[in-house]
Amino acid sequence: MRTKSFRSVVKKYKAVFFDAFGVLKNHKGLIPGIENTFEYLEKKGIFYYILTNDSSRSPEELARWYQQRGLRHVTTDKILSSGMLTMEFFKTKLTNGNAVAYLGTVKSAHYIESVGLETIPVKDVDFNNLDKIHSFAFLDDEGFDWKKDINKTINLLRQKNMTVVVANTDINYPVSKNEISVAVGGLADMVEQIIGKNFIRFGKPDAQMFLLAYERVLQDIKVNRNEILMVGDTLYTDIIGGNKFGLDTALVLSGNTLPDMAKIRIGSSGIIPTYVCESAVIE
Amino acid sequence: MRTKSFRSVVKKYKAVFFDAFGVLKNHKGLIPGIENTFEYLEKKGIFYYILTNDSSRSPEELARWYQQRGLRHVTTDKILSSGMLTMEFFKTKLTNGNAVAYLGTVKSAHYIESVGLETIPVKDVDFNNLDKIHSFAFLDDEGFDWKKDINKTINLLRQKNMTVVVANTDINYPVSKNEISVAVGGLADMVEQIIGKNFIRFGKPDAQMFLLAYERVLQDIKVNRNEILMVGDTLYTDIIGGNKFGLDTALVLSGNTLPDMAKIRIGSSGIIPTYVCESAVIE
Amino acid sequence: MRTKSFRSVVKKYKAVFFDAFGVLKNHKGLIPGIENTFEYLEKKGIFYYILTNDSSRSPEELARWYQQRGLRHVTTDKILSSGMLTMEFFKTKLTNGNAVAYLGTVKSAHYIESVGLETIPVKDVDFNNLDKIHSFAFLDDEGFDWKKDINKTINLLRQKNMTVVVANTDINYPVSKNEISVAVGGLADMVEQIIGKNFIRFGKPDAQMFLLAYERVLQDIKVNRNEILMVGDTLYTDIIGGNKFGLDTALVLSGNTLPDMAKIRIGSSGIIPTYVCESAVIE
Amino acid sequence: MRTKSFRSVVKKYKAVFFDAFGVLKNHKGLIPGIENTFEYLEKKGIFYYILTNDSSRSPEELARWYQQRGLRHVTTDKILSSGMLTMEFFKTKLTNGNAVAYLGTVKSAHYIESVGLETIPVKDVDFNNLDKIHSFAFLDDEGFDWKKDINKTINLLRQKNMTVVVANTDINYPVSKNEISVAVGGLADMVEQIIGKNFIRFGKPDAQMFLLAYERVLQDIKVNRNEILMVGDTLYTDIIGGNKFGLDTALVLSGNTLPDMAKIRIGSSGIIPTYVCESAVIE
Repeated sequence: MRTKSFRSVVKKYKAVFFDAFGVLKNHKGLIPGIENTFEYLEKKGIFYYILTNDSSRSPEELARWYQQRGLRHVTTDKILSSGMLTMEFFKTKLTNGNAVAYLGTVKSAHYIESVGLETIPVKDVDFNNLDKIHSFAFLDDEGFDWKKDINKTINLLRQKNMTVVVANTDINYPVSKNEISVAVGGLADMVEQIIGKNFIRFGKPDAQMFLLAYERVLQDIKVNRNEILMVGDTLYTDIIGGNKFGLDTALVLSGNTLPDMAKIRIGSSGIIPTYVCESAVIE
Repeated sequence: MRTKSFRSVVKKYKAVFFDAFGVLKNHKGLIPGIENTFEYLEKKGIFYYILTNDSSRSPEELARWYQQRGLRHVTTDKILSSGMLTMEFFKTKLTNGNAVAYLGTVKSAHYIESVGLETIPVKDVDFNNLDKIHSFAFLDDEGFDWKKDINKTINLLRQKNMTVVVANTDINYPVSKNEISVAVGGLADMVEQIIGKNFIRFGKPDAQMFLLAYERVLQDIKVNRNEILMVGDTLYTDIIGGNKFGLDTALVLSGNTLPDMAKIRIGSSGIIPTYVCESAVIE
Repeated sequence: MRTKSFRSVVKKYKAVFFDAFGVLKNHKGLIPGIENTFEYLEKKGIFYYILTNDSSRSPEELARWYQQRGLRHVTTDKILSSGMLTMEFFKTKLTNGNAVAYLGTVKSAHYIESVGLETIPVKDVDFNNLDKIHSFAFLDDEGFDWKKDINKTINLLRQKNMTVVVANTDINYPVSKNEISVAVGGLADMVEQIIGKNFIRFGKPDAQMFLLAYERVLQDIKVNRNEILMVGDTLYTDIIGGNKFGLDTALVLSGNTLPDMAKIRIGSSGIIPTYVCESAVIE
Repeated sequence: MRTKSFRSVVKKYKAVFFDAFGVLKNHKGLIPGIENTFEYLEKKGIFYYILTNDSSRSPEELARWYQQRGLRHVTTDKILSSGMLTMEFFKTKLTNGNAVAYLGTVKSAHYIESVGLETIPVKDVDFNNLDKIHSFAFLDDEGFDWKKDINKTINLLRQKNMTVVVANTDINYPVSKNEISVAVGGLADMVEQIIGKNFIRFGKPDAQMFLLAYERVLQDIKVNRNEILMVGDTLYTDIIGGNKFGLDTALVLSGNTLPDMAKIRIGSSGIIPTYVCESAVIE
């Protein structure tokens, strides 16, 4: 598959949206040389944001990870996550005295609590006292007993009809070079299938994620959608989502689309990036 | 199911988004009395828009239908359709000399041509000359020979990898009190299944439709999402889409959610409108 | 919904197949009076078998449950389970020195071991020594750590391509009057979705389950398929499976199809039983 | 991918089941040399049957096609089709004066009429006189006006609840080297999705197709399932179906699994044939 240099591609745009895993970082840490890319963007005055389907941590925590590895350009305000969409969602639904039950870590709940609502981990839900629980959130695959708490979630959602939000559309995520883990989106799919109800999902490839980033960049500059480049390693989230929102897209081969499979995957999926680049690194 | 009067609901909002079929009109024509609703909205200074998954006609044509039936408030600028999103999409992808092949009526193609691109009905596609065809659009279920042209579409999309857009997410639409017809979204689902590729779809419940309307209303007034009411007769498009976008929602029982089934449907779907009203008519 | 007495229905048949849960038993134990039904069948010389999607226990154990509650007619040879199909499957694939990895209890594995193959619980699988593992079985939702072992299963099936069998098609099962639990079929669906491979499933409504029972009854008597009645409480497994195999079917309202919903469910599903009866009890 | 000679494989079995298209024939006619295979089977006394998801023609017509091309061994009694299962199904449901409405050619209907039931093409169904129509059959993608008659079918099935049978599980079929066509199974999937009901499907990979063939071969010889070889070109129908039924399986690369993709397809699908052969031809 013929690829283009990332420099020759990115220089044509006013702003660039990056996926995180497989583009800026991998299981070993930052992708070597990625700091040069940010230096280049700063020098050229190209705006940049990171769009991540990560609802387990706040933008502050996510930014800290980059900062600690020397990528000082990635600050909290550069990070847009599906967790933020979830928080925004609950903000509009906020009513005094109401609470959200959830599956996830206490930390993932703290983040959505920041708008002022009360959260209750599923394990603490009392079936004799469901009055104040008005919605449910799937936040993280960690922080609970899968067997006990997934079954309790199913029976809670059967007993009381409430709005259910899934804060991460991904069904799995990489944990090492060859290993993946079920993501909270995968657990939510199973529960939705079993109870036969319709959940609300936040995260790429859904337009609301791209809208959040677009609104943010409009605060900086006046820009049309086709003056923005979406950079990602996954056809089914980053590229199709960017294409649909009207952005140009660059598939990078540094993550889960491997160089020797890129052509076959593009051909069989029908998801066609504007460009294909080896990686987002600028030498 | 206890319902609220539409007047008592709508008066709390700065803007209202209406679904068309089952809310403002049905197979017989305008829903009787609906003109009072628009008089009321005008008097109170509440902004309103109509959001429709209709890609077969232009906003001008859609507005003319209301005008001819005496609903003078529904002007072209009040109508937002999935066809407009399709047109916007192609505008960003526009390249000199490229063409879009399509299934639909000539009229539905004229509308997307208005941005300046060339369109070719599937029946006129020459398999020996595919160079200039860079994408495909499902526009309407009318205007072609289903057997011949659907099979030709399948073989075209197998032979050349291109972006495919579906301009209407609905899989069927009502044609009379008891009859429905396969919509172009239903045909697209079948083709997508057979060729195993991923199409891009425009229309409710997808966020991009609500975003289009929200951007439009922001040109009129400063308004938060939860100061907007989405009114619809279908849980799976109008209500879940509005809920997810952060709007309040009113389910009306004048269309395909029948009064005696509303409670069961809400309970079994898990899609919970903010309000339920008999209809959108204000006496 | 007009129902028929079970006696008036069953007397027309030479053999009857019963689903277990919701027909013969529920969360409290045997359905009161069901012993009269078996007395009647014995007296009339009508053959009977129990078809269950239960892979967690052997027919011996399943029969013991009925015996202990006084239903002496339900002997081991009367019970046909999806676990038996799984065992049959592995018998045909048996090769010296090969092993099956599994998710489930040790007891569920003992049962499939009875044909002579070796089994290894997922938690004991060594990724550096996968040579002898030639297939994988989902046997039971109990007996393992869901988070750890489901993730390990996913990575095992990604690392080595092997045949995967799901010994129970059900995605959930009842645990008390108002509570359900994820069944091993539900977990298997999630894993299949995440790794994108195709599993082999055993259990109703699949024809192989009915075939097993039909072959068994042919050892007793010469009978055509339409001289056999399938009795069940679930449209989507018992009734559609029986219909398709050419059996007559009786839906009973003593399990998960509730009396006030039966008509709606039959109408909306298009799965039409030959008869509807209050229960399988003969007074 | 390392392949085995078909001769070395087939000689180990007492009986062999062949898929037709891509194994014995292709769009040009008989696969050259396939007659040698049948000579060999006859000489060795290996029993053979052809299993085809073809409901558009009777076994007589299907056999005639082979006979006319000089393959005299393929006689009517050697052919087992999904159309036969459909006919068997209706035979068990036969009631005086009842009729089956259908989509397909008149010829495809003649075949299922041979058990004595009345058939009515959808175009002749009178909505004011539905009393005698007790079921519906999808038989062939030819013989009707797709737009008019598919929409009429949808409204018929919404108006009257009846059992629906799909006589071919395939969603497409090859019509030339590079072209495919929507099969009646693809149309049925679309209709099922739109009306939300559950259809009964006959054909590979479903066990009932293999059962029909197994019952037939048992009339000839006493044979265990693992003494039978299923030969096919499609992983998702022939191979997974054969595997599940307990047969050994041989994937041939003369049809829609191309030699250079076989290894990738087997790896990504998890459907593992016992053998892979270039073709079913014996030199």
